[in-house]
Amino acid sequence: MTESKKTTLSIVKIGGSIMDNPQALESFLNDFHQLKGHKLLVHGGGVMASKMAAQLGVETKMIDGRRITNQETLKLVAMVYAGWGNKNIVALLQKTGCNAIGLSGADGNAITAIRRAPVPVDFGFVGDPDPDKTNATFISQLIESGVTPVFCAITHDGNGSLLNTNADAIAYTVATALSKKYLVTIYYCFDKEGVLRNINDPGSLIPSITRKEYEAYKQQGFIVDGMIPKLDNSFRAIAGGVSKVVILHAKNLLSGKGTALISIDN
Amino acid sequence: MTESKKTTLSIVKIGGSIMDNPQALESFLNDFHQLKGHKLLVHGGGVMASKMAAQLGVETKMIDGRRITNQETLKLVAMVYAGWGNKNIVALLQKTGCNAIGLSGADGNAITAIRRAPVPVDFGFVGDPDPDKTNATFISQLIESGVTPVFCAITHDGNGSLLNTNADAIAYTVATALSKKYLVTIYYCFDKEGVLRNINDPGSLIPSITRKEYEAYKQQGFIVDGMIPKLDNSFRAIAGGVSKVVILHAKNLLSGKGTALISIDN
Repeated sequence: MTESKKTTLSIVKIGGSIMDNPQALESFLNDFHQLKGHKLLVHGGGVMASKMAAQLGVETKMIDGRRITNQETLKLVAMVYAGWGNKNIVALLQKTGCNAIGLSGADGNAITAIRRAPVPVDFGFVGDPDPDKTNATFISQLIESGVTPVFCAITHDGNGSLLNTNADAIAYTVATALSKKYLVTIYYCFDKEGVLRNINDPGSLIPSITRKEYEAYKQQGFIVDGMIPKLDNSFRAIAGGVSKVVILHAKNLLSGKGTALISIDN
Repeated sequence: MTESKKTTLSIVKIGGSIMDNPQALESFLNDFHQLKGHKLLVHGGGVMASKMAAQLGVETKMIDGRRITNQETLKLVAMVYAGWGNKNIVALLQKTGCNAIGLSGADGNAITAIRRAPVPVDFGFVGDPDPDKTNATFISQLIESGVTPVFCAITHDGNGSLLNTNADAIAYTVATALSKKYLVTIYYCFDKEGVLRNINDPGSLIPSITRKEYEAYKQQGFIVDGMIPKLDNSFRAIAGGVSKVVILHAKNLLSGKGTALISIDN
């Protein structure tokens, strides 16, 4: 299919903090509903999971920002992400008139992930998704029938076990798998204006970044921590066929103002 | 469509106690996978919800076997039913080769329920589903595309709120709505052989019951408690177009041995 004949698909990822703020969530979902064309939502839920873990007396153990997931924690994240978190979003979207469907990677065998090897760090029931193991046919059938998929950060291994999975990686994976059929833009929404030269100054927004510039900025030290895997997923998505990635504040979804990643020298 | 041209659909409902027993659940799901023809699963989760409520220090309050559902309890049942309970079943079915999809009534606007009036008893976020507000087109599209729907006992009001809903009633509602298109049999699985003359004697199984017999048995006093709403839902389903209802032990799903409800004098 030639690029010009493809229809557009917006894949929007929201993080855990907005999920835990009912007013911000409802306002965001109203904006999401107003996005034109086909769309798909991916959400995290880490903030709620950590609160629930504390309430249940389950220890939260993170390494490199990833949750160590034993059987008890897997049950907890499945409850929080696929249960309340996902279904609350779906019910709110239905209220706006958006016919949403909540999914984990197990549903319709949508996303199979590979459980991480136990060395050097045993993350437990944590899996990494793969665009080649993503059921693009099933997901696009839903989209074409007028339904809006809402993915939580849970996948499965195809062998009976659910897996805790990073939501940014799910957005990258689904976007890459669907880029064969659609002109895909990923919107990574979070609580900053985008990639900033100075993390405390929203005015220092970098409006666009090429891969070469990204490497240089990392060396200069102002792209650090959680922004690195987000940008790695973004450039991987562009290399895999995604048309555009924008990193932006959730409140700016409709204007699209943020940091756009450019594929020119990818 | 004439009856003879319709294809068959088995709607199977399992209760909360089997959900809480990993070995029994996996064995049951293997049987379910072997059922021939189109099928659909509905599950409860009350046992797990009560355990989780105790662990979280949330008070469990039941009236007439129904859970009083305030905002905190709604969050809890959405987590347990739509989260871990539903997704664990879906992952296990995927392992058997059954392409399952887990759904609440909010997903794809599948089942809208009416929130109960607050008098005489205020059950809170509890809703009663209605076959006329069930999206039979969406559910049958999934079935026809080779996917097996797995419904948890959560619906929505269409106005942004999830609702805790009785799983037997969901089975009745979906079965009735789909009976226009399919020859539907409902299998209500629980932990007895069927309707028994003497609850302590599995040999006292009543193999079939007509509605007249049901009325007589109620007067004679050996159909009591939780069996009454189950049978009421069953006869309502038959009156609404469902071909057959069988009440049976989960372990007898493949043989179908239990109490069959007969429509003859309905």
